[in-house]
Amino acid sequence: MGLFTNLTMAKKAGLPPGSIVHVGERKLEKAGIQLIHYDVDNLEERELGKIEECYPYKEKQGVTWINVDGLHDTDLIKEIGDSFNLHPLVLEDIVNTEQRPKIDDMDDYLFVVAKMIYHDPDDEFLKFEQISLILMENYIISFQEDKGDVFDPVRDRLRREKGRIRKLKADYLLYALVDSLVDSYYGVLEGIGEKIEKLEDDLVTDPEPESIQNIHSLKRELLLLRRSVWPMRDMLSSLERGASELIDEKNLIFFRDVYDHTVQVIETIETCRDIVSGMMDLFLSSVSNKMNDVMKMLTVIATIFIPLTFIAGIYGMNFENMPELKWSWGYPAVWAVMFVVGVLMVFWFKRKKIL
Amino acid sequence: MGLFTNLTMAKKAGLPPGSIVHVGERKLEKAGIQLIHYDVDNLEERELGKIEECYPYKEKQGVTWINVDGLHDTDLIKEIGDSFNLHPLVLEDIVNTEQRPKIDDMDDYLFVVAKMIYHDPDDEFLKFEQISLILMENYIISFQEDKGDVFDPVRDRLRREKGRIRKLKADYLLYALVDSLVDSYYGVLEGIGEKIEKLEDDLVTDPEPESIQNIHSLKRELLLLRRSVWPMRDMLSSLERGASELIDEKNLIFFRDVYDHTVQVIETIETCRDIVSGMMDLFLSSVSNKMNDVMKMLTVIATIFIPLTFIAGIYGMNFENMPELKWSWGYPAVWAVMFVVGVLMVFWFKRKKIL
Amino acid sequence: MGLFTNLTMAKKAGLPPGSIVHVGERKLEKAGIQLIHYDVDNLEERELGKIEECYPYKEKQGVTWINVDGLHDTDLIKEIGDSFNLHPLVLEDIVNTEQRPKIDDMDDYLFVVAKMIYHDPDDEFLKFEQISLILMENYIISFQEDKGDVFDPVRDRLRREKGRIRKLKADYLLYALVDSLVDSYYGVLEGIGEKIEKLEDDLVTDPEPESIQNIHSLKRELLLLRRSVWPMRDMLSSLERGASELIDEKNLIFFRDVYDHTVQVIETIETCRDIVSGMMDLFLSSVSNKMNDVMKMLTVIATIFIPLTFIAGIYGMNFENMPELKWSWGYPAVWAVMFVVGVLMVFWFKRKKIL
Amino acid sequence: MGLFTNLTMAKKAGLPPGSIVHVGERKLEKAGIQLIHYDVDNLEERELGKIEECYPYKEKQGVTWINVDGLHDTDLIKEIGDSFNLHPLVLEDIVNTEQRPKIDDMDDYLFVVAKMIYHDPDDEFLKFEQISLILMENYIISFQEDKGDVFDPVRDRLRREKGRIRKLKADYLLYALVDSLVDSYYGVLEGIGEKIEKLEDDLVTDPEPESIQNIHSLKRELLLLRRSVWPMRDMLSSLERGASELIDEKNLIFFRDVYDHTVQVIETIETCRDIVSGMMDLFLSSVSNKMNDVMKMLTVIATIFIPLTFIAGIYGMNFENMPELKWSWGYPAVWAVMFVVGVLMVFWFKRKKIL
Amino acid sequence: MGLFTNLTMAKKAGLPPGSIVHVGERKLEKAGIQLIHYDVDNLEERELGKIEECYPYKEKQGVTWINVDGLHDTDLIKEIGDSFNLHPLVLEDIVNTEQRPKIDDMDDYLFVVAKMIYHDPDDEFLKFEQISLILMENYIISFQEDKGDVFDPVRDRLRREKGRIRKLKADYLLYALVDSLVDSYYGVLEGIGEKIEKLEDDLVTDPEPESIQNIHSLKRELLLLRRSVWPMRDMLSSLERGASELIDEKNLIFFRDVYDHTVQVIETIETCRDIVSGMMDLFLSSVSNKMNDVMKMLTVIATIFIPLTFIAGIYGMNFENMPELKWSWGYPAVWAVMFVVGVLMVFWFKRKKIL
Repeated sequence: MGLFTNLTMAKKAGLPPGSIVHVGERKLEKAGIQLIHYDVDNLEERELGKIEECYPYKEKQGVTWINVDGLHDTDLIKEIGDSFNLHPLVLEDIVNTEQRPKIDDMDDYLFVVAKMIYHDPDDEFLKFEQISLILMENYIISFQEDKGDVFDPVRDRLRREKGRIRKLKADYLLYALVDSLVDSYYGVLEGIGEKIEKLEDDLVTDPEPESIQNIHSLKRELLLLRRSVWPMRDMLSSLERGASELIDEKNLIFFRDVYDHTVQVIETIETCRDIVSGMMDLFLSSVSNKMNDVMKMLTVIATIFIPLTFIAGIYGMNFENMPELKWSWGYPAVWAVMFVVGVLMVFWFKRKKIL
Repeated sequence: MGLFTNLTMAKKAGLPPGSIVHVGERKLEKAGIQLIHYDVDNLEERELGKIEECYPYKEKQGVTWINVDGLHDTDLIKEIGDSFNLHPLVLEDIVNTEQRPKIDDMDDYLFVVAKMIYHDPDDEFLKFEQISLILMENYIISFQEDKGDVFDPVRDRLRREKGRIRKLKADYLLYALVDSLVDSYYGVLEGIGEKIEKLEDDLVTDPEPESIQNIHSLKRELLLLRRSVWPMRDMLSSLERGASELIDEKNLIFFRDVYDHTVQVIETIETCRDIVSGMMDLFLSSVSNKMNDVMKMLTVIATIFIPLTFIAGIYGMNFENMPELKWSWGYPAVWAVMFVVGVLMVFWFKRKKIL
Repeated sequence: MGLFTNLTMAKKAGLPPGSIVHVGERKLEKAGIQLIHYDVDNLEERELGKIEECYPYKEKQGVTWINVDGLHDTDLIKEIGDSFNLHPLVLEDIVNTEQRPKIDDMDDYLFVVAKMIYHDPDDEFLKFEQISLILMENYIISFQEDKGDVFDPVRDRLRREKGRIRKLKADYLLYALVDSLVDSYYGVLEGIGEKIEKLEDDLVTDPEPESIQNIHSLKRELLLLRRSVWPMRDMLSSLERGASELIDEKNLIFFRDVYDHTVQVIETIETCRDIVSGMMDLFLSSVSNKMNDVMKMLTVIATIFIPLTFIAGIYGMNFENMPELKWSWGYPAVWAVMFVVGVLMVFWFKRKKIL
Repeated sequence: MGLFTNLTMAKKAGLPPGSIVHVGERKLEKAGIQLIHYDVDNLEERELGKIEECYPYKEKQGVTWINVDGLHDTDLIKEIGDSFNLHPLVLEDIVNTEQRPKIDDMDDYLFVVAKMIYHDPDDEFLKFEQISLILMENYIISFQEDKGDVFDPVRDRLRREKGRIRKLKADYLLYALVDSLVDSYYGVLEGIGEKIEKLEDDLVTDPEPESIQNIHSLKRELLLLRRSVWPMRDMLSSLERGASELIDEKNLIFFRDVYDHTVQVIETIETCRDIVSGMMDLFLSSVSNKMNDVMKMLTVIATIFIPLTFIAGIYGMNFENMPELKWSWGYPAVWAVMFVVGVLMVFWFKRKKIL
Repeated sequence: MGLFTNLTMAKKAGLPPGSIVHVGERKLEKAGIQLIHYDVDNLEERELGKIEECYPYKEKQGVTWINVDGLHDTDLIKEIGDSFNLHPLVLEDIVNTEQRPKIDDMDDYLFVVAKMIYHDPDDEFLKFEQISLILMENYIISFQEDKGDVFDPVRDRLRREKGRIRKLKADYLLYALVDSLVDSYYGVLEGIGEKIEKLEDDLVTDPEPESIQNIHSLKRELLLLRRSVWPMRDMLSSLERGASELIDEKNLIFFRDVYDHTVQVIETIETCRDIVSGMMDLFLSSVSNKMNDVMKMLTVIATIFIPLTFIAGIYGMNFENMPELKWSWGYPAVWAVMFVVGVLMVFWFKRKKIL
């Protein structure tokens, strides 16, 4: 599973628009449908075998949340689309998991595409899962690629008998779901923050050649993250400004709150990007610093010994007429000269701040 | 055929505006005209010898799609222009294949310039082909530089008797054609994505001097791609917002869908550009890393042997009065000293983390 | 206390929105409440034990300013929220100290989140403290993370019997508080300015490897500062444009003044960022300059002595038939040759501008 | 004539506004005036000695185009200004050749400043010449710095008896002139494109130190070009949107066409800038590559011979008790050892991919 | 006086808003007041001892221009503020010389803050002086930090009896003053242009380590300049669009003219910034080029002599059994071998394009 999963694109060129073809990895063996129906007093949870089982709830009072795990079963998706009267293009977007987050107001219903992002413990890369949400008067239908999500806290709040969520309508449930998604980004950012801190410590104490690849992959992770969160911001911005009549004006303040969180996430991403950019300089400087130390040592040793070796070479010549060779104090004198030359060079290095 | 084809520009300075002069490479021996006429029940396909043959279809019910391959036959273009009452500037833009994608609402008809992009299998560079589309009430006229296009799936859908495309008007056909073009960009991006992955692997394992040229040409490819797709976005954005009365409001949702795809393509291009930029750092760091290893080795060998050679030089001197030379254990002692010096230096290198 | 305090985020995923959970460091043992009530003629200052003690002031004429230090006591915050009828999301934002500066007009009251920024003398890093302000008709409630703030001048002005502040309403007090906050940024900037000057002097005279880390941490400090001040600007911009009816139109000019100051602060931050970016180049160039000097010296000494040592090596050979060795002037001649070679090389180096 | 001509600025500080002082190089000995008067049937061309000679044409039917070459004769400019009732600031802008392209709607007339750009064959730098155009009901007055322009094709079209240009009004003539100017940019871009291609080939095959200066001057050329074309775009954009009542709405489509061309030119400039930026990396990498090869060779030769020379140095020592020296196979054995050491090192270099 | 004068900020935190505290360097011993009163026929110039002396002019016909040099005398400023009914915040801005250029419409009067910029001949740095202008119906009050300004040409024009300036109102005088300020920027830019040209020549011919500091300080100069001129643009833009009723609509064209000049100045600054950025690359490449030459020389000399010295070392060994030593042509043969080896290496260097 390469890093490019999120860059590869729909290969359905040639199919008519509205063709419901699953694009993306098949993450699940068999699609599953869960239904939660609630009003202030009652809550009913069911695992559905067939989508028809949810039809009776259409007429009922209260809010119904239908959650579909697994997008490869396109017949199921089509069936749901037919029974809830969804536009073919909406269905196409639901199963195309490379969609960017967006909101489409289809008059009768609101179609929201969002991204769930998490660190896969088995894998060091970020995972992106597309969550599509359909908001109708009393209904929410959510589509996920895989089992397991960040919505359990919402379910728990629904099960607990009291709390705003049971009293309010489907629009508040939509808010609660989107809020859970955005909350999950904080965890991802924290993980990235820790990576950055660790990498920075490494860079200062012991820059490894691998560090550059870590910086590079951190950069790319932030790039992919940013690509998913920016359109979330646009989506929430238009929700918060009251884009749809399906959302009660009194609840707009909640969407503004999620919007604020998204802005905070984006700013943190941008700050991280700036910091990671700066780390490249830190790394390169650290490496060149170490290299400079190595070169300095070569220089010092070479420049001290090269003249001394030259002197030794001089008196290794075999000329018959070399009076110094016969002087009895010639040998110690040469040692003395060498010593003086060596000491002088060391002093000179010190003064030049090389040693 | 250099990379600059797309940078070279019209050399028709001095001609009156509206002069129909083919600008670009002549890609085809002889221009060809195909006509498809259809309504819900019937479909007629013809290869036209002369443009006049299409006049009878003007009055007919249903939609007529005339496709012209080859733009060098300016007389033909002019004839078509005259018979369909096209503005001279439109004709000029059709034959000037360096046009940027745009949309011009000419009241009676809509003039759309788009780009078909594909990887030429014979050539490693991207190919850009200009597709001009004229949308009238019941007519679409398309102009291509060369035979062969990405419209075959649209033709197939037309031939199959059922499906939305046969029921709807010419505006939907326009959508289907533009959608095919944008779909084809995904394939180009996938090719680039593969190149990026391959290059990244090379950079990490074995950076070659040629890699830098590959990065450079990848950068340029993305630059040219971006230059073609950005204006497509603007074009589709104004279409999607209902710029023309020739497009039924009910079909705007389809154009919004293509628009979304274009935005997705652009974001992927920008992400690729960011990644390719980062690869430059990766490459330079990889190269300087290898160089540093080479320099370290020089330093280690030189700094170990320079002092040892100096010691050997000392006892190569010919002074008569060198008592050490006469000591019977002098020679092994020198070896011992050299060994100790060598070992000490290696230890020192280890401690300094150079070795 | 790492630099990332300001990047770590709320870990309350899963709690219902409006949950009042303190996010951030607990900075204070016990929360404290101070109350200042004033009108033109009277001023009363009290330390409150319980929040109920402030209820009588609700009905009183004049302005009441309640200041709460410490946000970990969420029961207290909730109590205040209940008694002043604050929205749960507002309370949530008050205790979440990673909030970005913003303004929310809640019709009955105005909710302002701002940042106090200061250099901690015990620590070299910047400290960010969140200040939340609630403006009502006659009331201001301020929430701080810790004891100690930059509001003492405001308190002094209140205590002094005369001055505009005692004559005007709560909206002017809000201005005075926000103005104090923005004024405090100047001090922070001055500190950064001094650091920049010191660092620049160091870079020119004696670039240390540590300098790069100083540049890096200066960069990050500016990044965090910017992240806090930019939204302050947006907040003040909407205040200044008369976003709320709680602010008298006559007082808008004061908010425009603070807005101008924020713009000035932002421009200075951007200028500093540009200068710090440039310092990286200065540093790298300085370092590579020093390195070049070292390498030049190695080159000069090596290239002078290598040929001389070669000459000495020649006459150290033991060939029987080497006529030069027997010439009586051979030895001085070799010295002469060596001298000439050495001098020539020095001349050549001078001409090549290497020495 | 330095590159900075276009950066130096008006030195007329202190003169009252509207002072007509020629700023720029005097390019012409004597100013010249040409007049072309035409309607559908007639065309009259005259070289005017005095400006008064054009007064009779003011009342005539048809369009009159007065072209003035040379701006240093400020008396002439003032005279024209007086007789056509031009605002002093307009006259000031005409003679200040450092003006940026712009359009001023003066109610009675339209004042357009544009730039003619061309490669001077005698000089490798780009030449910028300011063209000021005054559009009145039936009149166009054009001012040029120098003889020779890119308007000859327009003149030819005027002279030829048929064609749209003779039938339409002065606004179409304005379009024709501006179109000629923009067309001329294509030639300049083509020249730059060729330079880029040539430079790129050089960089890959044989990077010279001079290349960097070529890149730098190419960068600057693009900078200056961009500085002239961007405001042309703004100017044409406001023309195209129908900024003036002097331009017939039916002709706006022509101005939109020039506008499109300008956008195309700008995009090509930006693409070129991106490519040239990338060439810097290509160059630096090419140079450092060559340097690395040099250093590798030094390393290989030095590290092979340094140990061998050390071995030779050992047996050059004069110890009396060196048994190896007396062994009859000592000398060949040393050779063998040296050979083995040398071969081993070469192998090691190969394995480390240095050789 | 460091470069940071313009970055240090007001240290008046804690003072009530509207406190008139002089922020900035005290540039003048004693404040001075000049008054010029004029109408079409008369002009009166006076040096005022006290501000009260100007009161009689308040009722007079014609325009009065009061110029105040020196801002440290806050009592004087306060007195002026009281007598002309200026808002305390306006007075605060006048004496705070770190204000950014802006325009405040105070209904009764217009408050303009602008910057005078000039090269101090005694100092190599740019000087920034704040000029505050108050425009009333018939009055202009200008505040300067220091004696000496760029307004003398305006004064001269006033003194000369004819010219538009004497006929028009105070708004035209405001224009004339602002125009003088903007004109003075051209001189500053020309100075910078010359510096750039000189620096570029130096970089190409003889790059000194100091060049980098010159580039850095040029960069910073442009940064400070830009910081002052950008808000001037915004200020003039709102003036030009008729922000105030105190400015006659007929005179707006003059303000548009100054606005155009400011845009021109800004574009030149941006162009200079781009060029200076590019010079860094030029410099670094120039330096590394020189270094490469040095390293090449080391490599060539070392790699030629190292093998030769090795050969000499071989025949310096003292083995008893070295047949070559006894050959009578051994010595010349070694010389020959060395010569051949040396020549071969030189050839090889030439072929590899190193020499």
